[in-house]
Amino acid sequence: MIVDCALYHHGVREVADGSWATALATARTQDRSFMWVGLHDPTKEELDKVAGEFGLHKLAVEDALNAHQRPKLEEYDDSLFVVLKTVRYDEVSQQIELGDVMLFVGDSFVVSVRHGEGRALGDVRKRLEAHEDFLDCGPSAVMYAIADRVVDDYTDIALEVETDIEEVEERVFSPVRTNDASRIYNLKREVIEFRRAVLPLVEPMAKLAAGGVPHVHERMRPFFRDVADHAIRVSEQVQGFDDLLSSVLSANLAQVGVQQNEDMRRISAWVAIAAVPTMIAGVYGMNFDHMPELGWTWSYPAVLVVMAGICLGLYRGFRRTGWL
Amino acid sequence: MIVDCALYHHGVREVADGSWATALATARTQDRSFMWVGLHDPTKEELDKVAGEFGLHKLAVEDALNAHQRPKLEEYDDSLFVVLKTVRYDEVSQQIELGDVMLFVGDSFVVSVRHGEGRALGDVRKRLEAHEDFLDCGPSAVMYAIADRVVDDYTDIALEVETDIEEVEERVFSPVRTNDASRIYNLKREVIEFRRAVLPLVEPMAKLAAGGVPHVHERMRPFFRDVADHAIRVSEQVQGFDDLLSSVLSANLAQVGVQQNEDMRRISAWVAIAAVPTMIAGVYGMNFDHMPELGWTWSYPAVLVVMAGICLGLYRGFRRTGWL
Amino acid sequence: MIVDCALYHHGVREVADGSWATALATARTQDRSFMWVGLHDPTKEELDKVAGEFGLHKLAVEDALNAHQRPKLEEYDDSLFVVLKTVRYDEVSQQIELGDVMLFVGDSFVVSVRHGEGRALGDVRKRLEAHEDFLDCGPSAVMYAIADRVVDDYTDIALEVETDIEEVEERVFSPVRTNDASRIYNLKREVIEFRRAVLPLVEPMAKLAAGGVPHVHERMRPFFRDVADHAIRVSEQVQGFDDLLSSVLSANLAQVGVQQNEDMRRISAWVAIAAVPTMIAGVYGMNFDHMPELGWTWSYPAVLVVMAGICLGLYRGFRRTGWL
Amino acid sequence: MIVDCALYHHGVREVADGSWATALATARTQDRSFMWVGLHDPTKEELDKVAGEFGLHKLAVEDALNAHQRPKLEEYDDSLFVVLKTVRYDEVSQQIELGDVMLFVGDSFVVSVRHGEGRALGDVRKRLEAHEDFLDCGPSAVMYAIADRVVDDYTDIALEVETDIEEVEERVFSPVRTNDASRIYNLKREVIEFRRAVLPLVEPMAKLAAGGVPHVHERMRPFFRDVADHAIRVSEQVQGFDDLLSSVLSANLAQVGVQQNEDMRRISAWVAIAAVPTMIAGVYGMNFDHMPELGWTWSYPAVLVVMAGICLGLYRGFRRTGWL
Amino acid sequence: MIVDCALYHHGVREVADGSWATALATARTQDRSFMWVGLHDPTKEELDKVAGEFGLHKLAVEDALNAHQRPKLEEYDDSLFVVLKTVRYDEVSQQIELGDVMLFVGDSFVVSVRHGEGRALGDVRKRLEAHEDFLDCGPSAVMYAIADRVVDDYTDIALEVETDIEEVEERVFSPVRTNDASRIYNLKREVIEFRRAVLPLVEPMAKLAAGGVPHVHERMRPFFRDVADHAIRVSEQVQGFDDLLSSVLSANLAQVGVQQNEDMRRISAWVAIAAVPTMIAGVYGMNFDHMPELGWTWSYPAVLVVMAGICLGLYRGFRRTGWL
Repeated sequence: MIVDCALYHHGVREVADGSWATALATARTQDRSFMWVGLHDPTKEELDKVAGEFGLHKLAVEDALNAHQRPKLEEYDDSLFVVLKTVRYDEVSQQIELGDVMLFVGDSFVVSVRHGEGRALGDVRKRLEAHEDFLDCGPSAVMYAIADRVVDDYTDIALEVETDIEEVEERVFSPVRTNDASRIYNLKREVIEFRRAVLPLVEPMAKLAAGGVPHVHERMRPFFRDVADHAIRVSEQVQGFDDLLSSVLSANLAQVGVQQNEDMRRISAWVAIAAVPTMIAGVYGMNFDHMPELGWTWSYPAVLVVMAGICLGLYRGFRRTGWL
Repeated sequence: MIVDCALYHHGVREVADGSWATALATARTQDRSFMWVGLHDPTKEELDKVAGEFGLHKLAVEDALNAHQRPKLEEYDDSLFVVLKTVRYDEVSQQIELGDVMLFVGDSFVVSVRHGEGRALGDVRKRLEAHEDFLDCGPSAVMYAIADRVVDDYTDIALEVETDIEEVEERVFSPVRTNDASRIYNLKREVIEFRRAVLPLVEPMAKLAAGGVPHVHERMRPFFRDVADHAIRVSEQVQGFDDLLSSVLSANLAQVGVQQNEDMRRISAWVAIAAVPTMIAGVYGMNFDHMPELGWTWSYPAVLVVMAGICLGLYRGFRRTGWL
Repeated sequence: MIVDCALYHHGVREVADGSWATALATARTQDRSFMWVGLHDPTKEELDKVAGEFGLHKLAVEDALNAHQRPKLEEYDDSLFVVLKTVRYDEVSQQIELGDVMLFVGDSFVVSVRHGEGRALGDVRKRLEAHEDFLDCGPSAVMYAIADRVVDDYTDIALEVETDIEEVEERVFSPVRTNDASRIYNLKREVIEFRRAVLPLVEPMAKLAAGGVPHVHERMRPFFRDVADHAIRVSEQVQGFDDLLSSVLSANLAQVGVQQNEDMRRISAWVAIAAVPTMIAGVYGMNFDHMPELGWTWSYPAVLVVMAGICLGLYRGFRRTGWL
Repeated sequence: MIVDCALYHHGVREVADGSWATALATARTQDRSFMWVGLHDPTKEELDKVAGEFGLHKLAVEDALNAHQRPKLEEYDDSLFVVLKTVRYDEVSQQIELGDVMLFVGDSFVVSVRHGEGRALGDVRKRLEAHEDFLDCGPSAVMYAIADRVVDDYTDIALEVETDIEEVEERVFSPVRTNDASRIYNLKREVIEFRRAVLPLVEPMAKLAAGGVPHVHERMRPFFRDVADHAIRVSEQVQGFDDLLSSVLSANLAQVGVQQNEDMRRISAWVAIAAVPTMIAGVYGMNFDHMPELGWTWSYPAVLVVMAGICLGLYRGFRRTGWL
Repeated sequence: MIVDCALYHHGVREVADGSWATALATARTQDRSFMWVGLHDPTKEELDKVAGEFGLHKLAVEDALNAHQRPKLEEYDDSLFVVLKTVRYDEVSQQIELGDVMLFVGDSFVVSVRHGEGRALGDVRKRLEAHEDFLDCGPSAVMYAIADRVVDDYTDIALEVETDIEEVEERVFSPVRTNDASRIYNLKREVIEFRRAVLPLVEPMAKLAAGGVPHVHERMRPFFRDVADHAIRVSEQVQGFDDLLSSVLSANLAQVGVQQNEDMRRISAWVAIAAVPTMIAGVYGMNFDHMPELGWTWSYPAVLVVMAGICLGLYRGFRRTGWL
């Protein structure tokens, strides 16, 4: 689906009259002009049509058709092809969802292709159109704006993941007995996926920052360095999450084991306490003819008192050693 | 066994009349011509004959004779030698099986050698023959087509492994009590082997993409970059699998331990409950002469009620603390 | 908040009369002169004003406004932007707290921006002003002095962390039964955060030491090498802490498990000892008519002695095998 | 001990008449000639004599005297010094044994020094002497032949280690209850040692393959690349072994724990079953005067039936929940 | 404390008459002459005096004053500054102790500074003075001799650590029940510290071997390569120790757990055996009026025999399944 399509001249959106071909021809001949076509989940036909107009490379178009690419920057003869992974926190499933944004960047055009349910690029376009001098830097300004938005979303998601990890930490180390293995594992899984979205992005952004990539305006270089820097920061955070989750996983295992063992010890201690009066009662239940105590008047209450006393003594001893 | 052998001129398969020597001579003298010989599990004699015709290096031929090579790209004086690992999911043993495809690539010939039960290259040849302009790029187009097929198979297998891992995850974290250690370990084993097939492939493909390798058509470079990119994606996935499986293995250990401990706790709790009436019965089984309760009419039912009451109380208490 | 602002000429603080603009103009025209402006938690307005005066890049200013940056060194057209992480050990929460110090370094100015509750830079300024020849090297001397102070703080904190780890080690391996999982985990968490502050600092300092960075006085290079060297030392220490804490965590798990098992074994051994007299008493509690022992005079005391003897024997045996 | 010493001319072994000095002088003056001296566990005197004749560097000679070097390639003024680790599977101790082969390679001589009980180099010499054209490439052909043999032995040992690992895997996951921790640990130990022999070899071989090393015949380069490639393959295998063994170690721990817990559960379940009739018997062993059941004729067999019924019911229940 | 100070000319120790200044002036003017000053735990005053004489850089002097530096090589304008970590096995505390040796190396002087209780450098000096041709290579010969001694000590310590690890392995896998967690952990701690001494040394030594460092005699390069090589060997060993100790730690945990579980199983099995006669005795202790067996003459001994038989049967069964 073609979401939006416009011609920009000196950073100002122009009313595009006539067909694409005309608009593109205008963009190509006019100085400081470019077209920006935005697609969302395009069909093969739509993409082929766009590719034909802008002369995009077959391989890049094939990649752009399929979601689930990894972040990359590829230089073709007369355009750049950039893949970014968008992240979104799905409130319902409480999971991170990855989407794709692909960009074809030439001297006089940008084609943005979005896959999946991620955040729409409409407001990026609106914010850009409000900064004419910025947009005047050409297609690479659009590329920067989108990459910046994507990486900003990473930062937000990293914060949410951090909150999740802190929550799970609190549960693991709280005295309340819970087994959070499954939840920790799911977090780990998400973190691994998240890292796969962020880490490969660093290198292309650093390359754009280093300069020497065609179709990139010189003024944009520090901006891409900024994006690269934020991507590195997020990927370091994510690496830290991974380490923490490994530790939490084994800490959880330890805590659960310790708590279960404590329960067992407590139950066993009670059984041990009960075993003593049972033994004494057994002794006085024996049928020997000559057991003088049996005839004494006070021996029964005395035995009961002794039993109770031993049980109490054991109970106190167990409390003292921490077995109860 | 020689599977197929043909002469291509301007991307079109020509009827090869006469001996190989003639065909090869034609390929060598004619512009934009090359021979493609396909072998499957060749004997030493067959391979030696082919090597003699095409002037292949002794070391490469020796490697091509033995399966179980690692992926690599070697430049010899007048040919490239490429080893690729094919993967196949064996339905019967439910295991990944590795095979080998070796390629000798010269200016006017390609020799493909396939080992093991992997997918035949016949349909790669057919699809190539349908794209004349592509095949016209010469031997490196064949090399690309085969490498692309091999890496596409990796993607499929990675998906199957992912499904297997998800299955095993579900079993581990389900309330049903299973011990999946053995299965997880087997998956880990496969993933390690898979990684050994994929990872070393990245570098040679990147080298082919970077250019400067002889016998490779300039137009093929972005295609090899695409293969390299897919190989990296798969190898990142596989790395992620490895991490996940390590976590699943310890999560499984934790879950099994937790479940067994729960069982023990429950059994012990029942034993503890049974110990109380046994103790009380013991007391009233003692043979003291002066135990006034023994003579009372209602003491027996009263004691039974007390026993039942204590047991019920313990049962409820254990339920409340989660011990039962 | 603007903390301090001064003009330095030949390393000597001059009384700055007039506005900043005048002072800055003086610094720019006069040889070996520079301005040093110190800010603490500046508002957007303050920072924008400063940025306007000194011509700082928009992106750097944006970064300087937000705390929680990662350490980095960025070259802009006419200034360097350096981010350092300060560390502080909070006595109350017993945790490491990270702050930020950002520096804008040009040929004739330094702007230092401090975020958070970290140590003030006032005494760095005082110590510098006492070394005129040093301060005469210009803005990069200020940058060195601040980086040196920051890294010195790292060394102190590393020592405190080391003490904490040693304490926790002692607790884990002491015979006193404690479960330190939560404390070890918290230390691990701090160490991961600490590493994130230290590690990325090494590269920028090494770059400053290697030379070729504008606005850096040649004489300062060995000093930055010294800072880089200290940063590497701390980061190696921190890496070692991480390894140690992983080992301590599993050692703690082992110790706790071993101690709990010992408790269980001890309780079970006592239950086993009590089971034997219960069994014997049960035998002589049977109601058979023909049990000749029952009639003998000394059988009751004899049985008691036998019971006591068996219990004592079991007790000794269990002591010998270490079960008690 | 000097094992063998010969002069080769155009790849043919010549009868060496006269002293070493004469032979060496011949080798030095004659084109395409070289001497090969083979030593086994030489004494300091023997080695010093050889070193004097061939002008070997003091440091290399010192290294060659001591076993337990790490694989390396060192260039001295007029000779190369190569250290290779030989591996041998000792049938008696079932362990991998490492030995050393050191080579001094000059333009007109090879000195091979072997330490330990590894495989003799006699058959390498014989096989080389059968390939005159190969031997005609000079001392580097000898170096290749020995390196090739050494790495081939690695491949064999890797296969044996793989078999050992598979055996141990089968034992760990079989229902037979064994604790293989000690065996797995020993395998891990061997693998670590093995890796230390293989890994450092890759770089020198790659260097020899890359060319630019003196005393190495140009034609030998692809051969050294082949050796490097095999060394990489083995070292990847060994790395995989290490990963697998870590997983097997924890899987073994899990299995043993699970099996022991199962035993405990079973024993406890039996104790729980026995506790019920004991309790009931206790009740009817009480001495109350008014227990009407005691007088009924069928109550004894009825109680026995009830006891048996409850035990059977518990047994079946425990079987169903998998506790027995 | 100044330990020794001498002037060397053509490798021969000369009687230094007059002040340092004179001696140094002589060394500076005379060809192939240099001074060697040896310090041990110098005070700030001593070091400042030496620094003043030899023109040492302030930063290097500051580092030399403080122990606990990391190994490094720093080039200053007219001298090298080298830090080496000495290791020593303290017999009393059975721990590795690290010390520092710092060297200032110029064209005509060496200043060696030793911290801590490590081995004195006196015998290095004596051995060097016995090799005039070696000492004639100038200050870098002294630097080599000291580095060589330091790394030789590493090799010795690595052997001691290896012995310690083997001892601990034997204890872990022996049937004797010990918990070596604390000892293994201490070894791990030492190994981490040891690695921190060895690893950073490799790079500076390799740099000295590669050439291009001022103040280093060309003839010394292979000697530094030798030191680098030994340092790499030790650091590989130490890395292997680290891996082994991690495995031993978990193997120890496993062994201890297995042994404790075995104990528990054995105790439980005995309790289970004792439960059966208790149950039977309970049955015949019931007070039913109609229990015909009670009146039979042989039922008491028969029941005893049955009890003994069941116990024996259980005992044998438990032995067979390995529960006892």
